[in-house]
This record gives sequence, C-alpha cells and structure tokens, in this order.
Amino acid sequence: MNNRPDYRDICEAAMRLKDKSIYTAVLSSPKINEQVGSEVFFKCENQQHIGAFKFRGAYNAIIQLSDLQKKNGVIAFSSGNHAQAVARVCQMLDIKATIIMPNNAPDIKRRGTEILGANIIEYDPLTENRETIAQQVNADNRLSLIPPFNHPHIIAGQGTAAYELASDVKNLDQLLAPCGGGGLLSGTALAVKGLQENCAVIGVEPEMADDATQSFQQGKIITIDYPDTIADGTQTLSLGEITFGLIQSHVDDMVTVSEAMIKEAVRLLFYNLKQVVEPSGALGLAALLERKTPPANRVGVIISGGNIDGKMMQKILAEPSIT
Amino acid sequence: MNNRPDYRDICEAAMRLKDKSIYTAVLSSPKINEQVGSEVFFKCENQQHIGAFKFRGAYNAIIQLSDLQKKNGVIAFSSGNHAQAVARVCQMLDIKATIIMPNNAPDIKRRGTEILGANIIEYDPLTENRETIAQQVNADNRLSLIPPFNHPHIIAGQGTAAYELASDVKNLDQLLAPCGGGGLLSGTALAVKGLQENCAVIGVEPEMADDATQSFQQGKIITIDYPDTIADGTQTLSLGEITFGLIQSHVDDMVTVSEAMIKEAVRLLFYNLKQVVEPSGALGLAALLERKTPPANRVGVIISGGNIDGKMMQKILAEPSIT
Repeated sequence: MNNRPDYRDICEAAMRLKDKSIYTAVLSSPKINEQVGSEVFFKCENQQHIGAFKFRGAYNAIIQLSDLQKKNGVIAFSSGNHAQAVARVCQMLDIKATIIMPNNAPDIKRRGTEILGANIIEYDPLTENRETIAQQVNADNRLSLIPPFNHPHIIAGQGTAAYELASDVKNLDQLLAPCGGGGLLSGTALAVKGLQENCAVIGVEPEMADDATQSFQQGKIITIDYPDTIADGTQTLSLGEITFGLIQSHVDDMVTVSEAMIKEAVRLLFYNLKQVVEPSGALGLAALLERKTPPANRVGVIISGGNIDGKMMQKILAEPSIT
Repeated sequence: MNNRPDYRDICEAAMRLKDKSIYTAVLSSPKINEQVGSEVFFKCENQQHIGAFKFRGAYNAIIQLSDLQKKNGVIAFSSGNHAQAVARVCQMLDIKATIIMPNNAPDIKRRGTEILGANIIEYDPLTENRETIAQQVNADNRLSLIPPFNHPHIIAGQGTAAYELASDVKNLDQLLAPCGGGGLLSGTALAVKGLQENCAVIGVEPEMADDATQSFQQGKIITIDYPDTIADGTQTLSLGEITFGLIQSHVDDMVTVSEAMIKEAVRLLFYNLKQVVEPSGALGLAALLERKTPPANRVGVIISGGNIDGKMMQKILAEPSIT
C-alpha cells in the first residue's frame, strides 16, 4: 500500500475487522424522514467499541504492525476517542499502549483510557511541548506511533463503517459524514464510491470549525485557530495531506451547520432514534435539517459516536426544540 | 389456538413479524459486564417501531383479524406505548384505529399517537368510566378490542423479542424481563424455554409495583393500588388470567428492585451502551446491579423500551452514581 489508500484497502480492512469490530445497526425514524423529506439511514457508530468509529481505524493500523513492533508497543497523542480506541485495541491484542494526554483532558476520557490498561503520560499543554514529551518517552524510537487520521491504515479502517452501510442499504443518493481531521470522511468516500458510484458523498463541519470546507473550496489545506464548537470531535485545526488529497478527489461537497442545529439534531436522535449521540455524531442530521444538501430520496448518515457527558446532554435536552 | 399460547405460537408470530418489526440489535458493554460479574446481552427493543416491544404484540394480534374486522377497525384503551403500537400497526395496514385515552395522559404520548393517524377519544378518569365511553363509541360492537397484554396473540407477539435474542445468543444461563401486565414476561418465558430449556427466566418488577411477585409467591392474582414508581410501563395493577397462568408454569422466579437502582441502570445504559432507555426498560440491569438474581455467566436482558421524556432523563442524569 502506498500512502494513498484506495477502495481495495477498504475491502481488506473490512475483512480484518470482521468479528473484531461491532457490525453496528442501521436505524431509521419515520418522524425524522417526514421532517427532512428524505428516507434517512443512520449508521450507529455510537454502538461501536469505545462508543465511536475510531476503533475501526486503530484496529486496522495496529493489527498490521510487525511482530516486533507489537512486542515493543505503541504510542498515541490524544485526549479523546482516538486514545480510547488505541487503548482498547491494545488491550484486545495484548500490546503495551502509551498515551500522551494533556493534563486538562476531561476526567471521564482520562479514566476511560486508563481503565483499558493504557499507560497515560500527562503533559501541561501551556508549558510543555508534546513532541518533546514524546521524544523523551520514545527516545530509542521503539514505540510505533499511531496517528489519529493522516495514515492510510487509519483511513481504510474508518471507511469500513460506510462500507457496511453502503453494502446493506442499496440505491443511496447521498451519504453524509462528519469531518474533523478527515479520516472518517475520506475513508467513507473511498468505500461509497467503490460500492455505489452514483451516491454523492458530502462532508459536514460545524460553521465554527470549517477548515476542511475552506480547504475544499480553495484547493489547499487551510489551518484555523482552535474552534469553539460543541462538536468536540471536529476541533482538529486542519486536514492532513493524505486526507485532504482524498477529499479533493472523492468527496462531492462540503457543507457547514450551526451550533443550534447540531443540538437540535442531538435532541431528535434522542427522542426518535433512542440513541445517545455526541454533537459531532449529529452533524449529518443537522445538515439535513438546515437544508444544506441537495434534495435526495435516500440518504445515509454516519453517526460517528456517542461519547457525550451527562451534563452536556442535560443542557441540550433542557433547550427547546427549534424545528 | 386456545387461550393459552405455547412455543409454536411464538414461532408463528416470529414468522408473521419477519420484515415487519425491526430485528433489534443485541448490545454488550465490557464495563457493565465487569461491574455485574456476568456477560450480559441486551436486546434493544428501544430500537423497535414506536420505541418499545409493544409493536410486536399489536401487529401479531391485528394482522390475524378477519378481513371484515380489519375493515371495521380496532379500538384500544391506553395512554402509553400500547396506544402508539396499535396506532402504528393500523397505519401500516390501513385500518381505522380508535384509542380511548384519559385526558391527563402526557401530551407527548397523546401527540405520538395522534401523529400516527389514530382517532383519539378522551375521557375524564375522575368523572367518567372508560367502559361506558367504550360502549358509546362501540355501541354496535363492530370495532375489535385489542387488549394490552391478556390475549394469546399479544403474548405470542411480545415473545418474539426473546425468541430473536435466544436464537442469536447461545448458552444463556438466565434471561431477565420486566413485568407489568405480564405479556412480555410470559411470551419471553415461552420463547426461551422452547429454545434453551436450561435458561432460567426471571421477571423483574419495581419494589413499588410488586403485584406479580406477590401473585407468583402466593399462587393467586394479587391486585395492588396504583403504584408510585418511576417505571411507568409497569404500573399495571395486576396480571391477567392468561399471563398469570403462563408465569406460574414457565417463569423460574420473580424479583424486585429499588427506585434508586432503576435510575442507576438508566444512567449506566446511557453512558456505556449509548442507549436511551425508559425506566421500565432498565429493570433487568437494576436486578443485576442489586444482586437480586443467582450468579450466572451469560445473562440476556430485555430492554423493553426507550420512551422517556427529556425532563425525566435530565433529572436522572443529574443524580450522582450509586454504584
């Protein structure tokens, strides 16, 4: 495999993940269908191991390490779902995982990673540089770095969610996926174009974190300041080189949604689909509610994850409906 | 079929419901498994049409009406999930549904039933008798009454959730189902004993609504006063004759759980399974958390539904964990 994965890599990742990842349910709601005017098929990656699609990429990357690399262990930087995904895969495969995490990471995420047996090394993001920490921890370069999105094995793994959806639900006109660093979106595009070439793939970002939309429109990678969005899974500052290239060549369009509509989508998924969905996972439905995408009969939506804390959900449920 | 359904009726109901009901997912959580000391398989009927298992029984009953009965329409008394289930089935089959509902029914449930096209007739439960209302509405006796639980077709339909679970997950030691009027529990027992005869079937009630537990222990139907439990799906005052007989002969034990542990179970299902579950649906997990059932390696749990309003979920999430 060269640096840029293709459809065959998605198929191979799907074979590797068979019986390892959860083959997540596809759910629909007549009420949501009526409200948005399309038949919508939600792929529920909130039901995936560790509550997010990130498990898929981490597994597909770590399982392909050499025996020596597996014996030496892996390292990752993350305060979020990627950390838990790497920790969970390493727990399954009996590999030593070291996670470099800022000391201001939410306690729930730190504990979620710790409980999976990972060795957590904290740093102070205000005074310390995480690359320096990593160099100290990995001075002899024995640990294999598992990047969060800009890696062909990660991208191929993330694409298997859409591979399952587009295998099970035929004749999709449109498929919507959230976009942070672009691993999920680029993998999704490869999978969908391989299975249903006439299905449009559209990436969705919060208005507050529209670096990928800007990059897509301007034809170059745009970096933004740390974005203040409720959708914390999309707070990445820029796409990677590989994900950007794939998005340019395989994604049909990028759209943005308001913070208010992201919260409305979380509420509708709670009431109608009975699913706990984190704000990033609700971006696709938010785009449909805001009519940001062309009219379509059959729409697939990737619900990327469900790791939302109770306080956040209380706050969202307490707000009145806006649709 | 006589009045008392058997395992074959469950199998036939499963055939009728194929491609009509949702074949709901079975989910597990390593964290919950660790906490309760068993491998637990949750059958997610919160993902069923109208957000509860009730769709299964209503469909299995209404589809077996004669053509003339279907043409004349059906009638049901309910302010809850049964009303929505009957309305939804009638919508699918193009049958006229009349629902008699108290005027103090929660607005969300009234609207949920109305939106499905049912004709709702309200009565004042303080001054009017619902049987009188029904006699007025159905003076010529043309409408077919669809009872909520004490009917062989309803029981057989409800049993198909456990039929799917026990078909998919082998070697279960124990299966837990909530108990209101006993339709779900008795159908579950028939299904499980037919598929895995060594699996113990245990019914779970709130301590505050323990009429079925009392009935099971005393060998006769006990009626209680209107119980003040958060698990509104189990507020039935007594079992029916058919459900009581089946529970006596096919259920291994009945246990009760505290209100505090029901809420804890709702929280754990929110955080670990990412599922929106109503208090009644969390009874099985509550029994495991309270160690009310004998130790077991592999346990099936029926999550009966997810129709919880936002305010109730906010309140439950705001309380601290007790485990």
